[in-house]
Amino acid sequence: MISRQYWRLDARPEGHDYDAALSLVEEPVEAPADGHVLVEAQYLSMDPGVRVWMTAREDGYSPPIPLGTPMQGQFIGRVVQSAHPDFAEGDLVRGFGHWATHSTVDPALAGLAKLDEDVADVRDHFGVLGLNGWTALCGLTHVLELKEGETVLVSAAAGATGSVVCQIARNMGCTVIGIAGSDEKCAWLTEDLGINSAINYKTQDVAAELEKIEGGIDVYFENVGGDLLDAALPNMALYGRIGICGLITGYTSESGNPGPAHFDQILMKRLTVKGIFLPDFMAEGRDYYPPLREMYDQGNLVGEFDETQGIENVLNAFTRLMTGKNTGKVIVALGQD
Amino acid sequence: MISRQYWRLDARPEGHDYDAALSLVEEPVEAPADGHVLVEAQYLSMDPGVRVWMTAREDGYSPPIPLGTPMQGQFIGRVVQSAHPDFAEGDLVRGFGHWATHSTVDPALAGLAKLDEDVADVRDHFGVLGLNGWTALCGLTHVLELKEGETVLVSAAAGATGSVVCQIARNMGCTVIGIAGSDEKCAWLTEDLGINSAINYKTQDVAAELEKIEGGIDVYFENVGGDLLDAALPNMALYGRIGICGLITGYTSESGNPGPAHFDQILMKRLTVKGIFLPDFMAEGRDYYPPLREMYDQGNLVGEFDETQGIENVLNAFTRLMTGKNTGKVIVALGQD
Repeated sequence: MISRQYWRLDARPEGHDYDAALSLVEEPVEAPADGHVLVEAQYLSMDPGVRVWMTAREDGYSPPIPLGTPMQGQFIGRVVQSAHPDFAEGDLVRGFGHWATHSTVDPALAGLAKLDEDVADVRDHFGVLGLNGWTALCGLTHVLELKEGETVLVSAAAGATGSVVCQIARNMGCTVIGIAGSDEKCAWLTEDLGINSAINYKTQDVAAELEKIEGGIDVYFENVGGDLLDAALPNMALYGRIGICGLITGYTSESGNPGPAHFDQILMKRLTVKGIFLPDFMAEGRDYYPPLREMYDQGNLVGEFDETQGIENVLNAFTRLMTGKNTGKVIVALGQD
Repeated sequence: MISRQYWRLDARPEGHDYDAALSLVEEPVEAPADGHVLVEAQYLSMDPGVRVWMTAREDGYSPPIPLGTPMQGQFIGRVVQSAHPDFAEGDLVRGFGHWATHSTVDPALAGLAKLDEDVADVRDHFGVLGLNGWTALCGLTHVLELKEGETVLVSAAAGATGSVVCQIARNMGCTVIGIAGSDEKCAWLTEDLGINSAINYKTQDVAAELEKIEGGIDVYFENVGGDLLDAALPNMALYGRIGICGLITGYTSESGNPGPAHFDQILMKRLTVKGIFLPDFMAEGRDYYPPLREMYDQGNLVGEFDETQGIENVLNAFTRLMTGKNTGKVIVALGQD
């Protein structure tokens, strides 16, 4: 009999005090029911959006996770038992399951996908080749209709999605400005990723820096919200576009973000503001993979990881993510291979 | 020698204390220079947007009106002297000039247009057949891509633009809900204009009323901002569209509106929020007139006026507009014909 460890949501967390709200539980795992698949996770993905599901808010894009049930998230792992014709023992897969050593899933509901192992690093199937990459490409091209030569601003630019946005926009011949929270992240963005400039929001006056952008910001890829959004709004170009991919500053709140004081610039500059939510485009996901893979194989799209070891350290990894300690994708390695 | 009276902006007004900020001045009028036209106004249009130009804000869609110069706005009147080949004495025209008995204008800069006198009421060239009508039609069709059968919410629904929005959406077979500030306005909307329902925001809980809308709001035509926007956001349908045509609640502020607390619903519901600003579409203006005129001639588009008499009462008329006393278009009649 296999047993698994999983993180159970016991209470709605306050701020970033996750220790008080979740506990690591062990339980036996039953054989998968007909049509289901049991996966042993190699890696867990830490994603900011799940913080909203931890709250009791009914107006998020997913309903609250019920208390007393496993915390949800993405895994990469190997099928250990399959009762579904499309998956076999040993398949390397990615899907939505639990913050757990093992997840039993319905492949359709979990978005379970077999992964190409012929990549430089299978962890990239989470990041630059996975949902972060898809979100960046879909957001920039489909939602924001980015064109060559435009000026693009990216917040949380050193984060998992932001760093892909920076690289794709750079590859498209755009002027790319990133906002990040440390000089090290800024140096990584300009020196390693080769974007045009980076602003450290903790030490620099973001609005004053954005005012210097000649012609204004054509496209703002927003992962943060709050003060950064307010700094960007008055510095948008006429008819600029803002994609709201994340509003991490508000995710710990039970009532949402305060709105931007410069909201009226949407009217004054005739901006278009749109939500970016990848699951809306999952059907197109297969179309996003080839161009990302091409950039990746050519060395024009690189993944960076903030990796923590062990199921027992998941909350540390999630806290690193939510408090901006990471450069690149935050994952937890579970030591299987 | 002709003389004219005009309203001069002497100071940036506080709130709605226009008496302290503007004064009525008389001055001689010189013959128009080459290429210019002198118009004697019959009617002046009162528009909320000009309130922004009265402030010192540099981030509005027009620069501040310099202190000591005439207040600007739309007129309908007759050409009394022309030094431009396209206009002759006696032509009935509409354009941008001053809050004045006479305006001397460059036709290109003033958007001066000869008017069809063969309409039921020439005043409608300001409203349902003029900029309000164009704004409503362009906003609903071009910016918001309204489709037959959708659910449309309109704020300031009994106002000059809102009431045209209501009628066009009704004509398109949409379910139309209006928000207005008195039971009389609500009755006018449902009984005279025949929209589906109206909410009195001064006596009803707007958010609670909007929650009852089955399937949510597909399109919100926003003229007001503030609390009404916050009531609408959580009640939008998935992928709903919000057109920001006006944010009148913030126009007296020197620093803009507070943003909506439910801003994050743009992400959670994947909304599209866009500014609507007619001057962007002036080149298409001639295309907007025929469909509006057709509805008008068929009795499916009616104008309502809140008319004040006399140049000396302009500030009363503007105050009526800015404090929501009006039903329909606020104009000042100057007694010429």
